[in-house]
Amino acid sequence: MAIRYKDTDPVRLSKDKHSIIIIDQTKLPSKVEYLEIDKLDDMYDAIKSLAVRGAPCIGIFAGYCMAILARQYKKLPADEFVSRLKADGEHLNSSRPTAVNLSWAVKRQLDLMDSSISSGLTVDQTATRIMSEAVAIHEEDIMMCMRIAEFGLSLLNDGDGILTHCNAGALATSRYGTGLGPLLLGRERGYHFHVYTDETRPLLQGARLTAFELVHAGIEDTVICDNMASLLMKQGKIQAVLVGCDRIAANGDTANKIGTSGVAIIAKHYGIPFYVLGPYSTIDVGTPDGDAIEIEERDPEEIRSMWYERPMAPKGVKCYNPAFDVTDHSLITAIITDKGIIKPPFERSIAQVMNIKKSSGRTMHFRRFS
Amino acid sequence: MAIRYKDTDPVRLSKDKHSIIIIDQTKLPSKVEYLEIDKLDDMYDAIKSLAVRGAPCIGIFAGYCMAILARQYKKLPADEFVSRLKADGEHLNSSRPTAVNLSWAVKRQLDLMDSSISSGLTVDQTATRIMSEAVAIHEEDIMMCMRIAEFGLSLLNDGDGILTHCNAGALATSRYGTGLGPLLLGRERGYHFHVYTDETRPLLQGARLTAFELVHAGIEDTVICDNMASLLMKQGKIQAVLVGCDRIAANGDTANKIGTSGVAIIAKHYGIPFYVLGPYSTIDVGTPDGDAIEIEERDPEEIRSMWYERPMAPKGVKCYNPAFDVTDHSLITAIITDKGIIKPPFERSIAQVMNIKKSSGRTMHFRRFS
Repeated sequence: MAIRYKDTDPVRLSKDKHSIIIIDQTKLPSKVEYLEIDKLDDMYDAIKSLAVRGAPCIGIFAGYCMAILARQYKKLPADEFVSRLKADGEHLNSSRPTAVNLSWAVKRQLDLMDSSISSGLTVDQTATRIMSEAVAIHEEDIMMCMRIAEFGLSLLNDGDGILTHCNAGALATSRYGTGLGPLLLGRERGYHFHVYTDETRPLLQGARLTAFELVHAGIEDTVICDNMASLLMKQGKIQAVLVGCDRIAANGDTANKIGTSGVAIIAKHYGIPFYVLGPYSTIDVGTPDGDAIEIEERDPEEIRSMWYERPMAPKGVKCYNPAFDVTDHSLITAIITDKGIIKPPFERSIAQVMNIKKSSGRTMHFRRFS
Repeated sequence: MAIRYKDTDPVRLSKDKHSIIIIDQTKLPSKVEYLEIDKLDDMYDAIKSLAVRGAPCIGIFAGYCMAILARQYKKLPADEFVSRLKADGEHLNSSRPTAVNLSWAVKRQLDLMDSSISSGLTVDQTATRIMSEAVAIHEEDIMMCMRIAEFGLSLLNDGDGILTHCNAGALATSRYGTGLGPLLLGRERGYHFHVYTDETRPLLQGARLTAFELVHAGIEDTVICDNMASLLMKQGKIQAVLVGCDRIAANGDTANKIGTSGVAIIAKHYGIPFYVLGPYSTIDVGTPDGDAIEIEERDPEEIRSMWYERPMAPKGVKCYNPAFDVTDHSLITAIITDKGIIKPPFERSIAQVMNIKKSSGRTMHFRRFS
């Protein structure tokens, strides 16, 4: 596959491959502004300021950063090329130390640099390989998202009403996103979905990011407050719920943005299928179940005052701000990964998937596994 | 009962009975400001601007307005007294034409004026009676709320964690409120509750009003986003849910603030009792079930931009803003009224309550009816 860049891609290479163009996500949804970046300091700032965000998206961005920098150093002697690129990689890593995909992508590029130089390639040839690697990282993510989108779309019908929660779209990953993938791919194939998007308090990823992505893709979207999902389901407007995921335990319990478990309970009450979408790599068999997942607690001011003209809860009252919750596996209809659709009983089907992988090492393209 | 006014009462008479003192609810929760009102134009503005709000509270306010005005006219000849007060009442009614309690209270005072004058009382005596009537309207509401609070408190235990949604407190009614009554009364009796309050998007009645009332009453309160209730319940922090109600159908289906039905479904999932609290008069046997209740749709800008520094959903995306939803009777543990606690099966127990009332005409003080 060769990437054809689109102006809705959150991260893309400029035509001359001398710079990276990103959507400045801090300005969304009020303004769509692009940043064209070719300097180390600006790369660092883009990650730090959340202009580029979402774990996979940061990885893609970092891959390109290393490629652009390598290109700028390609006239240098080999030892200087190597030491400059290593120092730059270290600096980039420090922009957001907890972002695993960031250090993963930087390391992937530095490993390639080391192996290329030590195998006798020139600095120029090495820089070219690093550029190809950046494109490969991006392509891999697009392919992964596209496979999720394909599997997900197979479960939906034209005309369906779909509820989404938080943002599991292209802005956090690449082209198709995870949770939104079936909708974006479906749109390309002429499907008409009526999407409803939970605004997703307190950080409003649904209202700000998901709604932006869907409207830009030409998909009919209606933003609702999180507490309106039950009414919509009762009115018969929702045929399926699609959400992303942060971590999936061995028994299928799934950690995702706060509010996900409530949506799942309400969907079950009304008999509406509830689908979790995410890369196969999100399954963590080292985590036996949801109880083993610690809930991150965030700043109360995100509830009390963030975005508002003035604080909306009185002084002296506490605000409790958990970042995510765990949806019990019993509430999940299916987990849709880039390797296939995993169905209950999850403990068995997930174990089976992992065993197959361990024993054969081959890529699986099963559908409706178990 | 004689009213002892408190500075937390949303509406109260001044000590000299020449003016009404109200909490300016438009300034909450940032500032607690009082307005002292004795002029017709200011009375009109207080209702129009929502400085005083909540159906019962507006009724109480209007009762006092008529009494203050009658007092100011007590040196006038009878015919002028009557015509001035009638004109003033009409003007007050026009401040918020849909507020049933407003016109109800004005009419109650004008009827008393008519009967007093026609039975030969002087203007001065009539004005005194109208003042007593205003106090009676207020006392009746306090007593009604206190009975609900007593019945509700009988279902709770010291140390309980309680979830509330929207505002069914004193600010909308009088002293004890409806949904918050058991908590406020419990506090007076030395109970310690840990209250969690849904912020209640989009109008944030929970964060702005309920949290304000509870903190002022010295009750421990923690504001959460609406989508966090499921996690709290899973964590074992909630022993009961208390909500108010707008209308209760003959089968027990209950219309209340948007989001209530979702909370009820999630509470049922976790096996947590879900209590609806409201005046007996909220039961409307002319409405067979929830399907007969039309859902009011409000301005989408309340979701997109209200309170915010800038719009949080992109242009071109729709926002759907239903004002309330209907909680199915199967999700309700009990309906707590000023006449007693009504339990399932609701269709039978509600019919029985109405029949008893019709046949005997006596006040009921049953508990755990049916």
